[in-house]
Amino acid sequence: MGESLTESRTEPTLPAPGGQPGVEPRRAAGAPERQGPIGTQRDGRPGPAEGHEAVMLLNRARAEVDPVLRAALDSLPGPLRRIALYHFGWEQADGTPAEGGSGKAIRPALVLAAAAARGGPEARAGAVRAAAAVELVHNFTLLHDDVMDRDTTRRHRPTAWTVFGDADAILAGDTLQALALRLLAQDPHPAATAAAARLADCVVELCAGQHADTALERRGPTEVTLDEVLAMAEAKTGALLGSACAIGGLYAGAGDAEVAALDAFGREAGLAFQLIDDVIGIWGDPRRTGKPVGADLAARKKSLPVVAAFASGTPAAAELAELYARPSEKEDLEHLALTVERAGGRDWAQSQAADRMAGAMQQLARAVPDPEAAGGLLALAEFVTRRSS
Amino acid sequence: MGESLTESRTEPTLPAPGGQPGVEPRRAAGAPERQGPIGTQRDGRPGPAEGHEAVMLLNRARAEVDPVLRAALDSLPGPLRRIALYHFGWEQADGTPAEGGSGKAIRPALVLAAAAARGGPEARAGAVRAAAAVELVHNFTLLHDDVMDRDTTRRHRPTAWTVFGDADAILAGDTLQALALRLLAQDPHPAATAAAARLADCVVELCAGQHADTALERRGPTEVTLDEVLAMAEAKTGALLGSACAIGGLYAGAGDAEVAALDAFGREAGLAFQLIDDVIGIWGDPRRTGKPVGADLAARKKSLPVVAAFASGTPAAAELAELYARPSEKEDLEHLALTVERAGGRDWAQSQAADRMAGAMQQLARAVPDPEAAGGLLALAEFVTRRSS
Repeated sequence: MGESLTESRTEPTLPAPGGQPGVEPRRAAGAPERQGPIGTQRDGRPGPAEGHEAVMLLNRARAEVDPVLRAALDSLPGPLRRIALYHFGWEQADGTPAEGGSGKAIRPALVLAAAAARGGPEARAGAVRAAAAVELVHNFTLLHDDVMDRDTTRRHRPTAWTVFGDADAILAGDTLQALALRLLAQDPHPAATAAAARLADCVVELCAGQHADTALERRGPTEVTLDEVLAMAEAKTGALLGSACAIGGLYAGAGDAEVAALDAFGREAGLAFQLIDDVIGIWGDPRRTGKPVGADLAARKKSLPVVAAFASGTPAAAELAELYARPSEKEDLEHLALTVERAGGRDWAQSQAADRMAGAMQQLARAVPDPEAAGGLLALAEFVTRRSS
Repeated sequence: MGESLTESRTEPTLPAPGGQPGVEPRRAAGAPERQGPIGTQRDGRPGPAEGHEAVMLLNRARAEVDPVLRAALDSLPGPLRRIALYHFGWEQADGTPAEGGSGKAIRPALVLAAAAARGGPEARAGAVRAAAAVELVHNFTLLHDDVMDRDTTRRHRPTAWTVFGDADAILAGDTLQALALRLLAQDPHPAATAAAARLADCVVELCAGQHADTALERRGPTEVTLDEVLAMAEAKTGALLGSACAIGGLYAGAGDAEVAALDAFGREAGLAFQLIDDVIGIWGDPRRTGKPVGADLAARKKSLPVVAAFASGTPAAAELAELYARPSEKEDLEHLALTVERAGGRDWAQSQAADRMAGAMQQLARAVPDPEAAGGLLALAEFVTRRSS
């Protein structure tokens, strides 16, 4: 999976503040029929209530965290600041201002929602700096992953390394990690030190996930086990969502058991997200994803449905192996996608995603027994995993 | 300067514990006559007393910090651990044990010496974890700098990226930065948080220095000013030596003024080190440095003496510009070195180095007024800047 799994085509378009929250573009005519999504209505659109809440939480997080992020980036020396501001979508490559595009602030929103769920508005207000730190770590990994994976597009713009070169993208990423941990080191909140240790641990796990990703891509599709790909996805995608929730809990003074449950909630939701993202990468609507149906198949990505298909032992799996061995030019991607589906890859991924979301809900009930208080985290989990194509 | 400036040919060979501390190999017959070194005897060898003390401090720092470093590296997931252990010289590429070679522990020794100078043995004992954190940051930057600079040799072995690939070297570097800040986040010492903020700031400065280095190398030698190269060297080499001393001071409870003076002491000593390293890169003894005379000239490095020569406005500077414009094959490197010398590059670098060491001594007197207590820091500064070729 050459593309970063943590910020990808799946995340639905987020209306700007004042726009029409929760209203998703219609599914394009001719888009493939899709199975019932998780936590959403049958047509793949979010129910108005939870969609609205998530959009509101995301917009609010963006508005609160951005000033902290901007102040942190502004403290960088000139050339590194320029690369970072470009990556965040706040400047063009030539240094002129640009319009937003710095992502949907899902991780900061999870930090703040977890703090609010366990400690109310006061805990939430105290966790803004930690939320910014989590977002800085996320962006540090994006900068480096794009260099390693040679990905050329990020948030609909050329990636930083294609504009500034590998060295500058590596250096900008290094400084974002440092800024993240400096934010926490300078945060007088009593939870800041524990949060810093947790975030540093998470960086190690994110790096291990990226390592596993590139290592798996070098192996043949039949040489990779489902467990390996799931473990990779958990490290690469689940770990930071889990840490975001756990850090929010720490800032609310939650106990060890609750913090662990918040971490598990984020991890499970992250895996559900990844599974659905991989489904979209094969069967998604090209008009929404910006990629043709079967793009991941054409790139021979070892996405979760594909590895599940190969592992199925069905006649369709054998057929798939044969198709994968052929040169990819002019192949019939719809037939390839159908073969993955016949081998059970799509059903497996969707049922796994449902299981993971069920697991996430169990962890959430453990971490935040009051359903009222858990509403924000629930809405965010449904937002990132809902089917919107 | 493609090569990292902070761990290079200049640092003298360090005898193993139980060896003959302070005894340097003789200067090879035919090695160029050298001017009087800083804080050393006329023949370029350290006086027995200060050489002995520095070697003892370095060996002691290595012995105390290594267990902390090893425990930190052992906590990494398998593949990242292997890369890190290889980089530190503790494992071969295939995972079999290797013999040391993880550098001379100059930065950890500075942390510990500064703590001891301001707070005695107790403060020193409390700063071991911080010393390890500084060494981790140093090694994180080495891993990344080698990728960016395409340097193929480090500590007499192939660099990590040549063995494991760019991606793995980048990831290993990322994890070492995280381990450094995790060590401090988990350190119950009251100074740990301030040290973490300072170390994170230093990472930003190191990255800015590396950025400036690569940017300067892309420009012509006459388009670069001495101030630019000095500022780059301070960021790339001086900043971490300064931070090491400042962090030691923080762990001893030193006040802001003393911590600032310790930082300035380390920076000045670092610049003196860099100036002398650059002199060796042109006129040094090939049998000691492993490089022929003029290696930096052949590589057209914009080292400090070369930029000073170009900036001199002398007839020799004009001649140098002409020589530099020619293809470098079969050129007379000794003649090139002589031209830099005639343009005043060597004298300038040596007098600058002396000025910087004098400045370092002034800062040291401010930071640690008791000369007895300042002895360790003084010995280390003399060790890293002494002429030993």
